Amino acid sequence: MQLSESASHTPGTVRPGGRTARTRAAVRDAVLTGLAEHGYPGLTVEYVAEHSGVHKTTVYRRWGSIEGLVADALQLAGEDSWTPPDTGSLDGDLQALAREVTETFGDAPAAAAPTAFVAAAFQSRRAAEALHDFYAERFARCESVVTRAVERGEAPVGTDAAAVVRAVSAPLFFRVLITREPIGTPLADQSAAAVAAAVRAGAYLPAG
Amino acid sequence: MQLSESASHTPGTVRPGGRTARTRAAVRDAVLTGLAEHGYPGLTVEYVAEHSGVHKTTVYRRWGSIEGLVADALQLAGEDSWTPPDTGSLDGDLQALAREVTETFGDAPAAAAPTAFVAAAFQSRRAAEALHDFYAERFARCESVVTRAVERGEAPVGTDAAAVVRAVSAPLFFRVLITREPIGTPLADQSAAAVAAAVRAGAYLPAG
Repeated sequence: MQLSESASHTPGTVRPGGRTARTRAAVRDAVLTGLAEHGYPGLTVEYVAEHSGVHKTTVYRRWGSIEGLVADALQLAGEDSWTPPDTGSLDGDLQALAREVTETFGDAPAAAAPTAFVAAAFQSRRAAEALHDFYAERFARCESVVTRAVERGEAPVGTDAAAVVRAVSAPLFFRVLITREPIGTPLADQSAAAVAAAVRAGAYLPAG
Repeated sequence: MQLSESASHTPGTVRPGGRTARTRAAVRDAVLTGLAEHGYPGLTVEYVAEHSGVHKTTVYRRWGSIEGLVADALQLAGEDSWTPPDTGSLDGDLQALAREVTETFGDAPAAAAPTAFVAAAFQSRRAAEALHDFYAERFARCESVVTRAVERGEAPVGTDAAAVVRAVSAPLFFRVLITREPIGTPLADQSAAAVAAAVRAGAYLPAG
């Protein structure tokens, strides 16, 4: 992924190169810890500097602000090698995708970062944009699940892959982060089975 | 709805009776305005007192704290006479439910309160509990859509009504409040059609 020219001139979007990758990771870790401990409103550049061991003036110079720090931490979170499950069937892949969500949110340390980012997006437009970009890229990767299902003849040609992969996760995120209800494997499996059935019924084909 | 005895002794959960209903509504309005303007971290009892015209000492005595104010505003929001759509068909009812969500979030003033409550729930455990209770009661009302569909023979006996009514709204809330993507009528209709197809396929029957 390459930075656009304009982004490279905006403080807080500058991406340190390989030489400073360790600094960036340390700062990202401090941002995540701070968000989990204090939430976005309580996160300060002082906290990030202290917990990352990176000097405050360096943090200000490279990331500009708390908003820049959160945006960069999200961008870094998106730079992993995660690939969606490939179990050999649409049902299996959707189930595995849904179960990953319940596993993440069922594990307090793993849940802290996504929860903190979603919360920060309510406080900061820049964090909201970064979160949008993170999920857009993440769900784009997931679409291969649907592409393969179409190739195998398990899903009709023209199935709205973007909608399918979001629909599987949405009831789980909705309960954890909005209606504040418990989730678990049975709910993940139910969501996956429901979306798979809707796919087979052609409910994700373009309206017409 | 009656308050439990213990609740009536907890500051902030005392529900003013009819005589003070106007005070309560004025305070609720000030809470909503304050949440929309400043977010939960910026909301103060001083702000609520000033904008409601209710004396600060009265606000403290009756609601105890910002948490009590937010919880009571949510409880008041749940005390409406809203009933789910009754169009005569499962498809029509689910579509109408989904469209209500897109209409709420497509209208900035209408979206402000639910958005502010969801954001506050990340900051305050008490707000999260109040939000849970609000949605639990709201979705319990929605279940009549599924009950009627079962009676009409449109849905299998044993269909998980709670899951169905949440699944219809979830992809819309997910995009607006989490992935920060736009929503609209086509997406509402797609979500409704997908869930209706899954219901017909028996995907919301108990696993076994």
